[in-house]
Amino acid sequence: MCAQTPQELEGFLQQCQLRVNAVLEKKFDIEYPSSNLKQAMTYAALGGGKRIRPALVYGSVLAVGGELAAGDAAACAVELIHSYSLVHDDLPSMDDDDLRRGRPTVHTAFNEATAILVGDALQSMAFEILSTAETVAPDKALEMIQQLSLAAGASGMVGGQYLDFEAVGTQPTLAELEILYSLKTGALIRTSALLGGLSYPQTSPKQLEALKAYATQLGLAFQIQDDILDETSDTETLGKPQGSDRELNKPTYVSLLGVDGAQEKATELVKNAIKALDEFSEAADTLRNLAAFIVSRAH
Amino acid sequence: MCAQTPQELEGFLQQCQLRVNAVLEKKFDIEYPSSNLKQAMTYAALGGGKRIRPALVYGSVLAVGGELAAGDAAACAVELIHSYSLVHDDLPSMDDDDLRRGRPTVHTAFNEATAILVGDALQSMAFEILSTAETVAPDKALEMIQQLSLAAGASGMVGGQYLDFEAVGTQPTLAELEILYSLKTGALIRTSALLGGLSYPQTSPKQLEALKAYATQLGLAFQIQDDILDETSDTETLGKPQGSDRELNKPTYVSLLGVDGAQEKATELVKNAIKALDEFSEAADTLRNLAAFIVSRAH
Repeated sequence: MCAQTPQELEGFLQQCQLRVNAVLEKKFDIEYPSSNLKQAMTYAALGGGKRIRPALVYGSVLAVGGELAAGDAAACAVELIHSYSLVHDDLPSMDDDDLRRGRPTVHTAFNEATAILVGDALQSMAFEILSTAETVAPDKALEMIQQLSLAAGASGMVGGQYLDFEAVGTQPTLAELEILYSLKTGALIRTSALLGGLSYPQTSPKQLEALKAYATQLGLAFQIQDDILDETSDTETLGKPQGSDRELNKPTYVSLLGVDGAQEKATELVKNAIKALDEFSEAADTLRNLAAFIVSRAH
Repeated sequence: MCAQTPQELEGFLQQCQLRVNAVLEKKFDIEYPSSNLKQAMTYAALGGGKRIRPALVYGSVLAVGGELAAGDAAACAVELIHSYSLVHDDLPSMDDDDLRRGRPTVHTAFNEATAILVGDALQSMAFEILSTAETVAPDKALEMIQQLSLAAGASGMVGGQYLDFEAVGTQPTLAELEILYSLKTGALIRTSALLGGLSYPQTSPKQLEALKAYATQLGLAFQIQDDILDETSDTETLGKPQGSDRELNKPTYVSLLGVDGAQEKATELVKNAIKALDEFSEAADTLRNLAAFIVSRAH
């Protein structure tokens, strides 16, 4: 089950996607007041994506000695928060993107009001799933909800999105950009690993700290790789418009360090992320391979 | 503390507002990544409003024999969900309202991107507050989070907002309009009373059922009164544009039953709401007076 080699990682990522989709499909398999809203929510939440955050949840569960099933609720919750944030981030008054995961964005395929409400409903669903996680003790579930709400809200992801919005056209320093990234994408990535650890009852506080340290480095590396791909890849491979950061005049690691400098920084961060896992056995090999994958991915 | 007479109700409502504002002001009294986002969130969440939903939480806590403080977390959580829903509902692609609670709406005072992110962050904060409620046992807190997430999401409030969006320009039957209202505003009002009951450890399942029955009737009465006021009041009193439902070609109880018919229906619902509280002592007088207030209010 654990991806011991880089070659096995692809299978693991597919498995993560299948597990999350199975749980979410079941969640959506009820009668909703509006079938159109349900259709748009399904489009947003089940429309592909790499499922990196669920993979971090499951990888962390494996690292601490748990079974994959223990991470199902947390994996779905973080993916729902991520999906909702993409739907809102793509809106005309935000990044105004027409393409996401190789398909029209929600407001393009449906309309703006639908996209706003879809995002709102997906966020609620994330907390619902954590509140009903059968494999998690109540106090642990509450801690997971607290951590996820903080990571998603004004002190985390939304705070980072707001800084991103305010940074357009400005020239932030590297330190300022790092803060922006640590919130915008870092908070949820960090919390994915943390929630994975919390999903297993025997995880020690020291292990949780190590998982957080790993994911903190990894989150920044992930975002830097995104910056590099936005500059060097193409729209078809990315599944979203290439060069959109530059077009929006957004500061990135590439605009500050150049492609080579950004690549160097990402490689260093991945090395540190893997080092943070030193106290774990080979059960953490999935996380180690995931870290290497993050900076070698093409989209 | 309990509002035994209609005259005492005003003091009770003020007390609810003070309690909720005090807790929320403390929540906002930290350093946020963006001071502008914090300012806009404060504007949205602390900018007045009748605090009907917190009053239902606190009134329910009193009805089952608890102290007001037991309801603080639930009162803030429901008010945050309500506040976020108003911010998103007012957006140009939704109801496109410029005025709310007598002041410019968030997207008018700031901008659209800010309004979207403010709403998103307030929703996260609602769940954060419930996850850290010190006076509530973990299993009860989880139940509250589950109930609130369901009431807020696609099977509740957001589902109702979507039906509302789909109903523009159509001629729904009274039964269809009732379903729409029971979701759009009813779900959160019902859940406010339920969360009040759950905030006190000794509340019996029978009491919870009675509180839900009360609030179900009350929620519909509240919405009908809103329809009546939209037709008969003026913009200054309402704090939002008068006649906006008619302008948006929205079906309402008034458009289906006329003002008198709608008033009759609301009065009947309030009678039934009060009847649902029969098994409660005078500790439920606040809820009884609140029900009468709902249909006599001028805004």
